[in-house]
Amino acid sequence: MKIGLRWLAMVVMAGSAFLPRVASAADVGGKWVAEISSPMLLEPVYARVTLSQSGDSLTGTWGTNSVKGTVKGAVVTITITDAEGQEAGSITGKIAGDTGEGTGKLAGLGRRGGGGAAMAGRAPVPQEMSWKLTREATPPAKPRDVNYSPTMFQAYYYAGNKPEIHIFPGDIVHTWAPDSAGTDKDLKRVALGGDANIGPIYVDGALPGDTLVVHLIKIAPNRPTARQGSRIQQFATTPAYNLAAKYDQRFNGEWQVQDPSGYATLSEPTPALKNFKLKMNPMLGCISVAPQGFEAYGGTHLGPYGGNLDYNGVVSGTTMYFPVYHPGALFGFGDGHAAMGDGEVTQTGLETSMAVDFSVEIIKGYQTQGVREEDNDFIISFGVAGSLQEALKISTAQLATWIKRDYGLTDSEVALFLGDVMQYNVTELVDPEFDVVSKVPKSALAMLTRQTK
Amino acid sequence: MKIGLRWLAMVVMAGSAFLPRVASAADVGGKWVAEISSPMLLEPVYARVTLSQSGDSLTGTWGTNSVKGTVKGAVVTITITDAEGQEAGSITGKIAGDTGEGTGKLAGLGRRGGGGAAMAGRAPVPQEMSWKLTREATPPAKPRDVNYSPTMFQAYYYAGNKPEIHIFPGDIVHTWAPDSAGTDKDLKRVALGGDANIGPIYVDGALPGDTLVVHLIKIAPNRPTARQGSRIQQFATTPAYNLAAKYDQRFNGEWQVQDPSGYATLSEPTPALKNFKLKMNPMLGCISVAPQGFEAYGGTHLGPYGGNLDYNGVVSGTTMYFPVYHPGALFGFGDGHAAMGDGEVTQTGLETSMAVDFSVEIIKGYQTQGVREEDNDFIISFGVAGSLQEALKISTAQLATWIKRDYGLTDSEVALFLGDVMQYNVTELVDPEFDVVSKVPKSALAMLTRQTK
Repeated sequence: MKIGLRWLAMVVMAGSAFLPRVASAADVGGKWVAEISSPMLLEPVYARVTLSQSGDSLTGTWGTNSVKGTVKGAVVTITITDAEGQEAGSITGKIAGDTGEGTGKLAGLGRRGGGGAAMAGRAPVPQEMSWKLTREATPPAKPRDVNYSPTMFQAYYYAGNKPEIHIFPGDIVHTWAPDSAGTDKDLKRVALGGDANIGPIYVDGALPGDTLVVHLIKIAPNRPTARQGSRIQQFATTPAYNLAAKYDQRFNGEWQVQDPSGYATLSEPTPALKNFKLKMNPMLGCISVAPQGFEAYGGTHLGPYGGNLDYNGVVSGTTMYFPVYHPGALFGFGDGHAAMGDGEVTQTGLETSMAVDFSVEIIKGYQTQGVREEDNDFIISFGVAGSLQEALKISTAQLATWIKRDYGLTDSEVALFLGDVMQYNVTELVDPEFDVVSKVPKSALAMLTRQTK
Repeated sequence: MKIGLRWLAMVVMAGSAFLPRVASAADVGGKWVAEISSPMLLEPVYARVTLSQSGDSLTGTWGTNSVKGTVKGAVVTITITDAEGQEAGSITGKIAGDTGEGTGKLAGLGRRGGGGAAMAGRAPVPQEMSWKLTREATPPAKPRDVNYSPTMFQAYYYAGNKPEIHIFPGDIVHTWAPDSAGTDKDLKRVALGGDANIGPIYVDGALPGDTLVVHLIKIAPNRPTARQGSRIQQFATTPAYNLAAKYDQRFNGEWQVQDPSGYATLSEPTPALKNFKLKMNPMLGCISVAPQGFEAYGGTHLGPYGGNLDYNGVVSGTTMYFPVYHPGALFGFGDGHAAMGDGEVTQTGLETSMAVDFSVEIIKGYQTQGVREEDNDFIISFGVAGSLQEALKISTAQLATWIKRDYGLTDSEVALFLGDVMQYNVTELVDPEFDVVSKVPKSALAMLTRQTK
């Protein structure tokens, strides 16, 4: 209880500081975001709150619960009731203008920080908490064109990185990202190497427990050259092969990547490769939200938050889905490749800086388990783990769960379906974690008949 | 030397038994196959021999060596010289009609049985050996149509299985194979379950150290139904997923697989699957030669000899390549699937019996490391091992070696090339070994400029 008391003291102090700013009563109706702190939590959790004021009476919702209460001047007294009519908590405090705060008790706290909606998995006994309300961010009347030239490049996936820019769902963002070595369109070093990412980009309205949807509108090299490695990495071939291989230290893996034909060619091809050209397929090697809680991973890492996924299907025209672990999602990307085979077996693609246009949406109150993608032809599930085997298992499990949820299939039905039409790609072998995607053609999904249970 | 002496005694006895059958001299010229036994070898090795007789003089070749000698009546005395002019051995014996035998010494014996040409990797000291010559099999003047209705079904991949039929390169063989459960076109049980294979089929002229080339001309279900599993196998999804899954024991995974539309449909679809149809892609799950030496593997296994590869690309119109470990190669196949997704995640495809037409060729004196394939669009390398990771490594190493050899690329060139255009498929997750294929588009290979070094 020591922690509880210390926390309580902090809340009281915060409450005192707040008091003088509130002078008179006002309509507290509207859409709010509640930030809930508690000694039961390592970090705050969040709930969407709607309030409706009629005289002194308050009604509304708190996450999936309903609220009822009174407002006198700025002072609110609210009871919270869950969907089954059980009391889930009670709070008091003050709301004025665009903010509010107070204390109370709430059921369902004390779960692991960052995952799931604040009100999910209720504990039987409501726990002490403090709350703050802020008005939900209002998107502009119509989506904006946002030109964003990044000046911050993050060496870590980490929620502590300060956002460089705020955007709203629907905004079309025009930006760029340096290559994995941190060089920009003029080959100027602007960031550390090791897959530094632009951002983080704060998506107004995104809360933990949501899914961030990213539409990749355009990805294109913004300089003439790319560079590629010319050794097969250790996880892609046998030790015997690489022991016998005589790699040329000075082999020139520089490519020309802005030919209007859409093909890349080597800058100084060897005789064997003089006619070799490669269809451009510009992709982002890294794309991410901030990982859970206080986790921090270097730029070459990957996980359910995304990161260095290195999938050659992350290209113009695709849509990505990320679990939101923190307010604003804290989106970012980098590590452009003009083209790449499966597995990133030379430890690089055709590494270059990229011009990128994108927009985002938020799926509120539903959190994807790990990263997903859709292109014109497939729905795609990413599995990231310390081995190919585990990565593949995670990828399949997410895809199966996804399809079961969307189409109301039974376990037997989805098993049979995946056994018939699922495909696997080994996207990346060479980073600290492995990445396998499983995917199913949309043409096959279109033949399923949705069941409601 | 005890073994040597015992062996010598056997050879002398054999020689004695042979003597009475030889009455007069004859032209020993022509193409022969030498079978070489030695106490240094667990099993015989083989060499192709050409002899040319002029009077009493003999010249010719023995594997990659040259021979010189004399023939008096049936008695031959020959010295063998390697490509660098060093003496590689000397033999004596008798040749008459279509057979010969004798003893001698030969360099290069004592390597692991079954792999590589008999004369490869010479030891400095020639070893005692005995030899038999038989005339090389003469293919028919023109390729035959061979109708082969199998009556033998092998539960093991094993060189000790007695061949059911002999064929020549070029013959068009019309046959069929039961499904993995051993049932035929009339759903009659003709073999044990567990992926019994037809054959073995003895390919006249194939010797250890060669590559067997198999053209799969037609693969088509020869009965109306197939059956499919409806659980996701343990290596394809997470333990948590399968613990939570409620599989329906009575789920009906029977398919109709002979609709002229080319699509398979479920015999008794559930409401969710009532519109689900599946493009037919008839494939052979098992296809093999006999494995090395005295190895014996059950029908569900797989390895560099092929076996239960379960690749959904082993279909009509493709060409497969197998290392030949034994005379005649001892080819076979089974485990037909009317269609299947990647990885065989329900532990089955659409299992059915198949009508199969095929023909073979032999690449003499060159042995592929493991199984390979070509279709219209790709060259394909199979990697089989106890984990996905090792399977993938083996697959990449073989593909890289293949392309280096065929195009004269350097290690750096082939690394860069594979990094750009290689693709991976996880073919099979659910058998005793794992199978990953790597592949490269023929359109990319066509842009390489062959180098001679």
